Amino acid sequence: MKFRVTAKDGNARRGSLTLARGVVETPVFMPVGTGGAVRTVTPEEVAESGARVILGNTFHLMLRPGAEVIRAHDGLHKFMHWSGPILTDSGGFQVWSLADPRDISEQGVTFRSPFDGSKIFLGAEESMSVQQTLGSDIAMVFDDCTPYPATHQNARESMERSLRWARRCRDAHSSDQQVLFGIAQGGIYPDLRVRSLEVLEEIGFDGYALGGLSVGEPTDQMHSVLGQVTPQMPDEAPRYLMGVGRPEDILVGVRSGIDLFDCVLPTRNARNGWLYTRRGIVRLKNSAHRTDTRPVEEDCGCPACRHYSRSYLRYLFATGETLGKRLCTLHNLWFFGAFMEDIRCAVDSGTLETFSEAFLDGYIERGTNVA
Amino acid sequence: MKFRVTAKDGNARRGSLTLARGVVETPVFMPVGTGGAVRTVTPEEVAESGARVILGNTFHLMLRPGAEVIRAHDGLHKFMHWSGPILTDSGGFQVWSLADPRDISEQGVTFRSPFDGSKIFLGAEESMSVQQTLGSDIAMVFDDCTPYPATHQNARESMERSLRWARRCRDAHSSDQQVLFGIAQGGIYPDLRVRSLEVLEEIGFDGYALGGLSVGEPTDQMHSVLGQVTPQMPDEAPRYLMGVGRPEDILVGVRSGIDLFDCVLPTRNARNGWLYTRRGIVRLKNSAHRTDTRPVEEDCGCPACRHYSRSYLRYLFATGETLGKRLCTLHNLWFFGAFMEDIRCAVDSGTLETFSEAFLDGYIERGTNVA
Repeated sequence: MKFRVTAKDGNARRGSLTLARGVVETPVFMPVGTGGAVRTVTPEEVAESGARVILGNTFHLMLRPGAEVIRAHDGLHKFMHWSGPILTDSGGFQVWSLADPRDISEQGVTFRSPFDGSKIFLGAEESMSVQQTLGSDIAMVFDDCTPYPATHQNARESMERSLRWARRCRDAHSSDQQVLFGIAQGGIYPDLRVRSLEVLEEIGFDGYALGGLSVGEPTDQMHSVLGQVTPQMPDEAPRYLMGVGRPEDILVGVRSGIDLFDCVLPTRNARNGWLYTRRGIVRLKNSAHRTDTRPVEEDCGCPACRHYSRSYLRYLFATGETLGKRLCTLHNLWFFGAFMEDIRCAVDSGTLETFSEAFLDGYIERGTNVA
Repeated sequence: MKFRVTAKDGNARRGSLTLARGVVETPVFMPVGTGGAVRTVTPEEVAESGARVILGNTFHLMLRPGAEVIRAHDGLHKFMHWSGPILTDSGGFQVWSLADPRDISEQGVTFRSPFDGSKIFLGAEESMSVQQTLGSDIAMVFDDCTPYPATHQNARESMERSLRWARRCRDAHSSDQQVLFGIAQGGIYPDLRVRSLEVLEEIGFDGYALGGLSVGEPTDQMHSVLGQVTPQMPDEAPRYLMGVGRPEDILVGVRSGIDLFDCVLPTRNARNGWLYTRRGIVRLKNSAHRTDTRPVEEDCGCPACRHYSRSYLRYLFATGETLGKRLCTLHNLWFFGAFMEDIRCAVDSGTLETFSEAFLDGYIERGTNVA
């Protein structure tokens, strides 16, 4: 892996991340393919939208189809037919958000599979082993996600456990083909975040992530943490803000110095008929669109806007036809692809402030529920 | 419209059907896009499978989204973004199979919308009017579908009503852009079928269809009707067997002289994980496929077989991911595309008997539930 910062605009960075399976221009947004598929669309379609890296989830894939099925395919890339870079989450966040009940010990987390009720144990070593089987290009350390709200004391304990697990992940990680990113926890407390980053840097990782944000805290508080913490992340390594993906949050993240983002929002919202446009979110199910022959967004090059009307897409949702979810997913992926490309151009030309203001003026001021 | 028979092999015909929106080589299979979409796939994907004509359903489209929405798009082609020929069914079959309760009078059929319970009337003139709004290339007459079983007397009455409605459709049909096909009824009684065809020919249509087959009668009986009736259909016009689509039935149909077929089987079965191959039907949900890294069919050029394993496709079904239904739909459409192309080559070279035997030997004899 090689990471080069090629331009700066304030704290914002333009970079180039070279992985075995391709070069990724940053800042970048990574669509989420939780269970070995970016839902409703093919890898070819994901690539056409401009996406270069996708996410996979250790938690889901180890439970279904199981590591042995992925191993039979020589890894996740062949299993799901995506030849570009893949980043796998460690399972830490999902154990926290999806496994209930769960039993957390120093060794790791024991929980019942939400799919078949079987008892599962996931710890640092197990996560590394599964991610190695998945064969992702970027693996993430197994972390303990700090809930919100949490007292400073509780956030510190969770952060320190994450650091002990991060060290075990570093020790257990053995793949040459795969790089490993550390995850800083610390909740909404900048001092804990910075301390977490110091120790992670001592351990030594290929990249550094902020985890446990966008977990219920007020947006202002998240933005404040980003502003205070991101500039203190290691300069020479890629910086990844996990699970944050509203356009307005991405702008704040980029301006604080974040390089990588992922989020389920564009794909999940698409499946609910929420479409991102430069004028805000179009809610396709609104009856206003029933006979509207215009595309979702006039100057969008995505397959949905090139070929179909709002009326048709709305109709597909009304009849439960999955082609609708698919076309809307494509639109949102294209929107995020173009949005990140615009951001990269703005950083390159030192105009991120102007771009950001103009974007937010159209996106937020004119309302998030345009017809 | 121009129809030319270019070769014969026994009763089987090779033909070329020229419509305003394209030339269709026959015998042809037409995928069903009931409600303005071939479910789960795009028109581009349908075309790539080799399909040249698709079906739309008057019954569904008049109820949802309603003719006025289609009119706002200047017709079904623009609404669903399919630029090739479209054949629309008249609603006669759906009124019979989907509307319950229904009240049939000489004027037409009154029924409650299965979507919102509203009271709807559909008769010959209404069907013609809606089909004109849809702007299909081929319209079908509004017919009274004869149930199975039916006495000779009942079948005759139904057939005669269909003929009276056919005459009204002919009178009401006014589009230059759209051709109109007559539908012969008569149940399992060849004498009624032949009489029906005689009257339809007197009225004069651009093509002739057999309706009300594959509605519950034994397969042998359907095949027997085809063998006796099809050769007596007008020679110079296209002959269409409605709603019949099992490969073994298509072979019988072609050998009797049928030119056009449609059926929901390839698309509906795909969505249930039933995949057509030359060795019979692969049932993807079988646990035998759990770790099977082979494609569904080794020498198939479809996107599913080119890029994905049985294991992966099975996994997509297991997780409810709609990409699985979509990839399987593509496979089945490609299978039918290649199957019809093989049939056309066989008729061209006068080897249909040999092809048919060899196909059925692999498809039927080796079992319809291969691993």
